[in-house]
Amino acid sequence: MLVVIGLGGHALLSRGEEFDLAAQRDRAAIAARAIAEIAREHDVIVTHGNGPQVGALAVQSEPARGGGATSLDVLDAESVGMIGYLLEQELGNELDGRDVAALITQVVVDEADPAFADPTKPIGPKYTEDQAKALVFERGWSIAPEGDGWRRVVPSPRPRAIVDLRTIEILLEFGVVVICTGGGGIPVCIGADGGLHGVEAVIDKDRSAALLAEDLSADALVLLTDVDAVMADWGMPTERPIRVADPAEFEAIAFAPGSMGPKVAAACEFARTTGRPAMIGSIEDAAAVLRGDAGTTICMTGESAPSPDPPQPPRSTPRIMHLSG
Amino acid sequence: MLVVIGLGGHALLSRGEEFDLAAQRDRAAIAARAIAEIAREHDVIVTHGNGPQVGALAVQSEPARGGGATSLDVLDAESVGMIGYLLEQELGNELDGRDVAALITQVVVDEADPAFADPTKPIGPKYTEDQAKALVFERGWSIAPEGDGWRRVVPSPRPRAIVDLRTIEILLEFGVVVICTGGGGIPVCIGADGGLHGVEAVIDKDRSAALLAEDLSADALVLLTDVDAVMADWGMPTERPIRVADPAEFEAIAFAPGSMGPKVAAACEFARTTGRPAMIGSIEDAAAVLRGDAGTTICMTGESAPSPDPPQPPRSTPRIMHLSG
Repeated sequence: MLVVIGLGGHALLSRGEEFDLAAQRDRAAIAARAIAEIAREHDVIVTHGNGPQVGALAVQSEPARGGGATSLDVLDAESVGMIGYLLEQELGNELDGRDVAALITQVVVDEADPAFADPTKPIGPKYTEDQAKALVFERGWSIAPEGDGWRRVVPSPRPRAIVDLRTIEILLEFGVVVICTGGGGIPVCIGADGGLHGVEAVIDKDRSAALLAEDLSADALVLLTDVDAVMADWGMPTERPIRVADPAEFEAIAFAPGSMGPKVAAACEFARTTGRPAMIGSIEDAAAVLRGDAGTTICMTGESAPSPDPPQPPRSTPRIMHLSG
Repeated sequence: MLVVIGLGGHALLSRGEEFDLAAQRDRAAIAARAIAEIAREHDVIVTHGNGPQVGALAVQSEPARGGGATSLDVLDAESVGMIGYLLEQELGNELDGRDVAALITQVVVDEADPAFADPTKPIGPKYTEDQAKALVFERGWSIAPEGDGWRRVVPSPRPRAIVDLRTIEILLEFGVVVICTGGGGIPVCIGADGGLHGVEAVIDKDRSAALLAEDLSADALVLLTDVDAVMADWGMPTERPIRVADPAEFEAIAFAPGSMGPKVAAACEFARTTGRPAMIGSIEDAAAVLRGDAGTTICMTGESAPSPDPPQPPRSTPRIMHLSG
């Protein structure tokens, strides 16, 4: 069985935690233990977020702090280098010498994606209103209110194609555990010359994980974060975890920004497109979440289920069949 | 033919140039064009330095500038993410869709390596004597004089084994151009528990390139930098480029620190160990350097040449033969 595992940025750095290397290493070790439990039984591809990390690097690289002018695709690449290294090391140690590879992954987005006109993804620290106004003026940033402060927001376009898909397929074929599309992948557009060019954006990592799972014909997509399950009646006395649900059941729910919304949307998309299950749950419960003993399982049930072998979209790259697939 | 190409950190950022993203992209594009010329004819593995880049990231991440405590292995990983991304993008564009992969690469060093007791590799900016004294006191850094100032120096241990070798071999087998062991690879030691742990060091990238070329049974090792050739009688009226030489001819020459010494040592080691040629030259002349029409070619000549197929050292990982090898 092939499992695509998506780690939230907050699965690697707790909410409210200062960006700190020791904490980052500890969280990577916890994530690696959880992933290894699954990887001992199944083929595994690991993707991860980078929200807190890319925010910290963006602050460090500010010109006033000694950095040169930089851009989000490059900061993305730096954060992916760091997180990929820590995960590869911890996972390799857990898996006792099994090959683990961390790949820099480019992901194509559409220049005409409406997200570029409507930046919504918050990155970096909170600012006061005066700081926020100055940053809009000096840097041309988009800044949005959050809680009692303001934060930089950047476009979060949909991933369209994973540039490095064939590399991932080759390594999977040989039993390598691949860490890829970190931070949703480095956002690139196809230029008029047909070449790839980095753009200022942060791709939704959950959608990239879903796209990767679809492209690889994964048997399951497991999105891990720091909460136990998707909750019904969140914040109300009747609040309770949702254990199993059909994508249609989530359509009526409006998730708050920054909440489980993107995970639920990506999980529903994977379940709908492929007819295979997607799970959401806590990183500590990873193996139980995959088994359906913890977290939330989203799958097509009853009449809404597609035929067992839904038609696959046409692929532009030559396909390497997966040995266990 | 399989060619391992090593790019100097200064092939990616000119000496004296400020760390600047636009300059970095331009240099990556120039490097990509040079590498592509070789990659259209041969199988290619690309390694690169990161001296100027890791120095800049180290400055940015200083606690006083908003960074958390960090360590050289992690900064190495960040710089490798950035450089790997830029090279992968530019090289993919030059090679018109041929698969290019950028791998985070761990390289094992020996905890008992004498380099740990004698840090010699300069990184980061120049400091005044007062700044240098404060950094020694506050951070426990080693600082050495350079020109009219002082610079941080870190251990530069010998690379012993490339952790990700099998991954590189698999991708090579499938015709992927692999960018790996960036910055000499991320330095790790094998702990008492048998696991890998990052260490505070910067591995000599030229020696890592030579080790990689040996391990992959490469047909040639090409080390590219910003100078045309190794010079005889350097700085004297009789100064002239050395076109072809036997490793033995370099033994008598004492190279100044920070000069061509490490490149020459790595090239000689490769030529001696394998009986195959190593070249040193300017990045702009890459294809001509490989042909022997520019730069310096170091190869075993006459009596000193080993048998055409020297015995290979035993390998701990299963060997994937190279298609064209």
